[in-house]
Amino acid sequence: MLGNTFGRAFRLTACGESYGEALSAIVDGVPAGVALSEADIQPELDRRRPGTTPIDSPRQEADRVEVVAGVMEGFTTGAPVGLLIRNVDRHPVHVEQYRQKRDLARPGHAEYTYRVKYGRYADWRGAGRASGRETAARVAAGAVAKKCLARHDIRVAGFVRECAGVECPPVSWEQVLAGTEKNIIRCPDPAAAELMIRKTLEAKDSGDTVGGVVEVRVRGVPAGVGEPVFDKLSATLAHGMLSIPACKGFELGDGFRLARMKGSEANDLPYFDAQRTVRYRSNHGGGIDGGISNGDELVMRVCVKPTSTISIDQETIDMARLANAHLPSITRRDPTICARFVPVAEAMAALCVADGLLLYWGYERWCGAGGLGT
Amino acid sequence: MLGNTFGRAFRLTACGESYGEALSAIVDGVPAGVALSEADIQPELDRRRPGTTPIDSPRQEADRVEVVAGVMEGFTTGAPVGLLIRNVDRHPVHVEQYRQKRDLARPGHAEYTYRVKYGRYADWRGAGRASGRETAARVAAGAVAKKCLARHDIRVAGFVRECAGVECPPVSWEQVLAGTEKNIIRCPDPAAAELMIRKTLEAKDSGDTVGGVVEVRVRGVPAGVGEPVFDKLSATLAHGMLSIPACKGFELGDGFRLARMKGSEANDLPYFDAQRTVRYRSNHGGGIDGGISNGDELVMRVCVKPTSTISIDQETIDMARLANAHLPSITRRDPTICARFVPVAEAMAALCVADGLLLYWGYERWCGAGGLGT
Amino acid sequence: MLGNTFGRAFRLTACGESYGEALSAIVDGVPAGVALSEADIQPELDRRRPGTTPIDSPRQEADRVEVVAGVMEGFTTGAPVGLLIRNVDRHPVHVEQYRQKRDLARPGHAEYTYRVKYGRYADWRGAGRASGRETAARVAAGAVAKKCLARHDIRVAGFVRECAGVECPPVSWEQVLAGTEKNIIRCPDPAAAELMIRKTLEAKDSGDTVGGVVEVRVRGVPAGVGEPVFDKLSATLAHGMLSIPACKGFELGDGFRLARMKGSEANDLPYFDAQRTVRYRSNHGGGIDGGISNGDELVMRVCVKPTSTISIDQETIDMARLANAHLPSITRRDPTICARFVPVAEAMAALCVADGLLLYWGYERWCGAGGLGT
Amino acid sequence: MLGNTFGRAFRLTACGESYGEALSAIVDGVPAGVALSEADIQPELDRRRPGTTPIDSPRQEADRVEVVAGVMEGFTTGAPVGLLIRNVDRHPVHVEQYRQKRDLARPGHAEYTYRVKYGRYADWRGAGRASGRETAARVAAGAVAKKCLARHDIRVAGFVRECAGVECPPVSWEQVLAGTEKNIIRCPDPAAAELMIRKTLEAKDSGDTVGGVVEVRVRGVPAGVGEPVFDKLSATLAHGMLSIPACKGFELGDGFRLARMKGSEANDLPYFDAQRTVRYRSNHGGGIDGGISNGDELVMRVCVKPTSTISIDQETIDMARLANAHLPSITRRDPTICARFVPVAEAMAALCVADGLLLYWGYERWCGAGGLGT
Repeated sequence: MLGNTFGRAFRLTACGESYGEALSAIVDGVPAGVALSEADIQPELDRRRPGTTPIDSPRQEADRVEVVAGVMEGFTTGAPVGLLIRNVDRHPVHVEQYRQKRDLARPGHAEYTYRVKYGRYADWRGAGRASGRETAARVAAGAVAKKCLARHDIRVAGFVRECAGVECPPVSWEQVLAGTEKNIIRCPDPAAAELMIRKTLEAKDSGDTVGGVVEVRVRGVPAGVGEPVFDKLSATLAHGMLSIPACKGFELGDGFRLARMKGSEANDLPYFDAQRTVRYRSNHGGGIDGGISNGDELVMRVCVKPTSTISIDQETIDMARLANAHLPSITRRDPTICARFVPVAEAMAALCVADGLLLYWGYERWCGAGGLGT
Repeated sequence: MLGNTFGRAFRLTACGESYGEALSAIVDGVPAGVALSEADIQPELDRRRPGTTPIDSPRQEADRVEVVAGVMEGFTTGAPVGLLIRNVDRHPVHVEQYRQKRDLARPGHAEYTYRVKYGRYADWRGAGRASGRETAARVAAGAVAKKCLARHDIRVAGFVRECAGVECPPVSWEQVLAGTEKNIIRCPDPAAAELMIRKTLEAKDSGDTVGGVVEVRVRGVPAGVGEPVFDKLSATLAHGMLSIPACKGFELGDGFRLARMKGSEANDLPYFDAQRTVRYRSNHGGGIDGGISNGDELVMRVCVKPTSTISIDQETIDMARLANAHLPSITRRDPTICARFVPVAEAMAALCVADGLLLYWGYERWCGAGGLGT
Repeated sequence: MLGNTFGRAFRLTACGESYGEALSAIVDGVPAGVALSEADIQPELDRRRPGTTPIDSPRQEADRVEVVAGVMEGFTTGAPVGLLIRNVDRHPVHVEQYRQKRDLARPGHAEYTYRVKYGRYADWRGAGRASGRETAARVAAGAVAKKCLARHDIRVAGFVRECAGVECPPVSWEQVLAGTEKNIIRCPDPAAAELMIRKTLEAKDSGDTVGGVVEVRVRGVPAGVGEPVFDKLSATLAHGMLSIPACKGFELGDGFRLARMKGSEANDLPYFDAQRTVRYRSNHGGGIDGGISNGDELVMRVCVKPTSTISIDQETIDMARLANAHLPSITRRDPTICARFVPVAEAMAALCVADGLLLYWGYERWCGAGGLGT
Repeated sequence: MLGNTFGRAFRLTACGESYGEALSAIVDGVPAGVALSEADIQPELDRRRPGTTPIDSPRQEADRVEVVAGVMEGFTTGAPVGLLIRNVDRHPVHVEQYRQKRDLARPGHAEYTYRVKYGRYADWRGAGRASGRETAARVAAGAVAKKCLARHDIRVAGFVRECAGVECPPVSWEQVLAGTEKNIIRCPDPAAAELMIRKTLEAKDSGDTVGGVVEVRVRGVPAGVGEPVFDKLSATLAHGMLSIPACKGFELGDGFRLARMKGSEANDLPYFDAQRTVRYRSNHGGGIDGGISNGDELVMRVCVKPTSTISIDQETIDMARLANAHLPSITRRDPTICARFVPVAEAMAALCVADGLLLYWGYERWCGAGGLGT
């Protein structure tokens, strides 16, 4: 298995499976001198952890993080930050249930593709490395990235924009900050949230699951972040988001709606405000022009497919006996992962921006030529 | 400027600007023994080159490719393939026009973000490195990737799925192959194509531009391509697509429509057919499960924003005088880039799949454990 | 801090400091199906751990490794292998001693260069990340690599070729295997070993330290490993070796002695033996031609400088007061690290070969064109 | 073939074979605003090109470089710099000679290892990609790196320290600058140079070749360049040097002689001079402590093996007929490559330092915590 490292300069390397001993993460590129402790990371992990609401998985994981490296007497040292999260809810009964179904590919899940690649050695315990459980490492690393970004007044905020077919009406940055954590679906609009939850519980009752759309915004990113051509900030953000389990789409700014606009409607016109700061009359482009941040708010949305694991019988294949088979209903599951997806998407955005910023600033001092004026 | 290399094992490195001397590309990871010559690459470049229809830019570029390395007596040698495309339409009159407007940021374009990053040294001749002209290098490299993939019966086909608000009705693989190149908008449905062209010309007449959606399908990709967690095939495809100028969104399979489906609707049920081959009852997921190809057709769509350069006056900023300014109408432009986007998107898909395949097969022999059965 | 990942496909990412909580390592690219447990790794760690002989540091570390990810029921799953080694000998008295000297740069050590880079936040506890302690992570990961290589009959063996000015006479592969672990200096020649140890103890008694040369040989590497031009196997081996603390030189085959040979002496002449296997009349080149393994034994040597930390007063600088200063004698130190360096150098060789092999085999199947004959 | 890219942020990607159409290089990470033209690069290429002295190859190559991208009106734009060097001396007679010997492995050369990897498609024309000819691309890119470094008062100077068994006596930085280009062997000591040349010509007369040692020094590198652990500056320098054809060893500072020194002799003692600048009483370590530049001069030496191609009959194998064979004397060859190696080694040093500096400065601004004082 390759591909367990994300980023170029500010980079996360992670390992760990759903029912393995622990999730482990190493975050490289962290600046020295950042005040950091478990108390900075734990709240983010708590937002993601399961077993806390009727619309997520009943699995009980405390998701206690331990910082094992890179911090001395309360401050980062410049050395890579090592993070460890022990798995605790690994009851042998559950493991035994997974063993009995190990040869049955769960539709929409990764059992078949992993089996092709890793054979019978692929970890079958609760989807192994393909489980959403790995995202705890992302969230922990993202908390480190957020702490680094906060020193430069860069803030990341996500929320559920759509769930179970219910859309959140337009919301301001302030509403997102104030309202997202007020309900279990993480939608800042109370009425929409209530409807989303109701529809999700209805689907749950019928053994089914629902999907949605998560929006992430980032404020404070200076103009200049992102590398031209292949490593555009938009491209690395898309990469990061599509790497999250269950993500099937990404759009920036107005995204797919831009396909139906005219150039004269879609272009964001820049102007100097009274403080000689560059601003824009609109933000259709999501804060990125030519792959580089333009100083406006980054706005992006990702599609979260309905959880694959459902409490409904499904046709499938038996990968050992090479025969068509029947997968019985599975009870231990997330009716929707939209709410838990929010901190994960925020983490990926934070990691991307931190990585881009580190590379940008390296180039900036190296170059010494940037900026407006003659 | 960093970020001029794409891919991990099969990788493209490129350089070149809109009005520079040439575009140059180096393709690494090409297997030895592939029959390759300029004649394999030129037709793909011809699909992308401008100046051939009323709905693209009037710029005249022959886009003649020269293979300068990596091929001996008609076959690749295993050495990196070097490609060179000279820019020819660089009339001093045009360069002078660009010079006069060099301090005016074109809205929706990269002049401002490049100026922030590279200062007054940023290439102002026709958008420089940020011009869509760089995509010629992608297409040339993509042609090499396609030739490599064809040896393994993997084929890539793209088309315009939507343009100027007109949607192409559902089309089969065979229709895409047969119909896409039959009209100048590259839509396999003749009626939709006609309407797209008419609407684009209407926008052109009003000085405006239109966007659309390009769909790319890939057939023949074996199950197993893509690396878990951060380098999912979906993530590298999204990265590649979002790196194309004007791309603002990516979706896989049913994409954002999955947000409104139930798990029981979205899951693609696998079965063994009479030949003991794994097939699926549907393809909502776009041929990728858990980030790894599942053997079904890859299906993805990307959003192409309307061309930023319009023949309509716009407000903007003067980056040298630090003042609000006025950008006059620009006449040399693409009414839409949707049709020219098709070969570029195909190229990125081909590069991603080739890269993923090379890594997969390395792991496969290293591992020796994959496959179904006990 | 960047640079905590080694390798391209088979790759080690590590973190941890001398007096931090733990060393953590993540090994990516491990094939599925390798029998692996702590029992495979611990013996290698035991070869490296301190406090066991009169010629190494008195620090007491059990170096107990825990496999936290990537293994299920005794076999690797293809997921990255997570390794954790807790630091145990972190007595507050020692930490306090380091705190008192935190502003004094130890000559030959990294305090000054780290201070320049990370400021006063740089970990001053026993050299922090710059301590040789980090090599425990390398050795643990190297044990995983060795286990993977053993499946392909590739074996790695190192020994002390020179120490304290005493040279080991020429030794065969069998002598290395049989004799290296028989004495505390890891020299397979008993007489040379005895002299090395005596000279080292003499230096120790005078408060000083000694250096040496470690040789590593690798048998069973098939011809074809290593990538042309910039990623020659020789180059990645040199990279890996020079990344080990205290390493100041690398040579392949006859190394620097080749500078004084004629071409007719230095060329290794190939021939087919009775089994039609390619063999060589000599091995001056160390088993690598043009950067690619030629099927013969890999032979390399690295220079280990005398340990910087000595029990003799030294002039130095006070980095906080910006003044010249005096560094008192330090008692907790390694008289020589040559013996402990052996498993570390072996680990780096194993990681390099595993990485090269994985990339080679990916290319090989991708290419399908290699091999002799017409 | 992978491995045609060198560096992380400031990076060279290259292609081209000995008898291919051209060598092509793309240099990424170049800052905007550097005055650059062919006239800056050509002199470096002229130092490396063959056919100019009795001790190098008779091949006639003008090595004219064309800058095809990344420069506008005399200044770099921040875009990657594209370089092109056409091969001109490709007489069909020579190609035909190579064709006739294509199945005979030249001992010490890469024909066999390439044949294993790329089969009969491997380029057999004058060693193809494995020819020293590829180093022209390194030198051209190195000239770009040197120009960038010069803006920060960093200078690179190499010379032949040993050739044909003749050693150059100790020489100062000024002597190196003044004397190296004064003779055809690039040894700043006139007497040693004369003897080196005479011995090389004697070997040439007997059909043989000689090797040597090249030393490279770099002045002006600030303390702080190099990344801890796996990407130490020493490790990336070793990587770069060992990637040069015919290089079989690397040492830093006193290198292998450190193996025989005591710690008290080897440690370089720092002190503040009258200007409060950190200086050292000695430079045994070569200007790098803990893998990071310490502000002193970088000093390194590499071993150059005697050219493999000799005018003496040799035993070898026929790779097509799988039989032992006889390789006749080859006349077109370099009696020594030591002198031509100097600009190549300088180029690699310059590329490594530029890359390290770019990453360092990115981290530095990101971190904002470095430096001495409290």
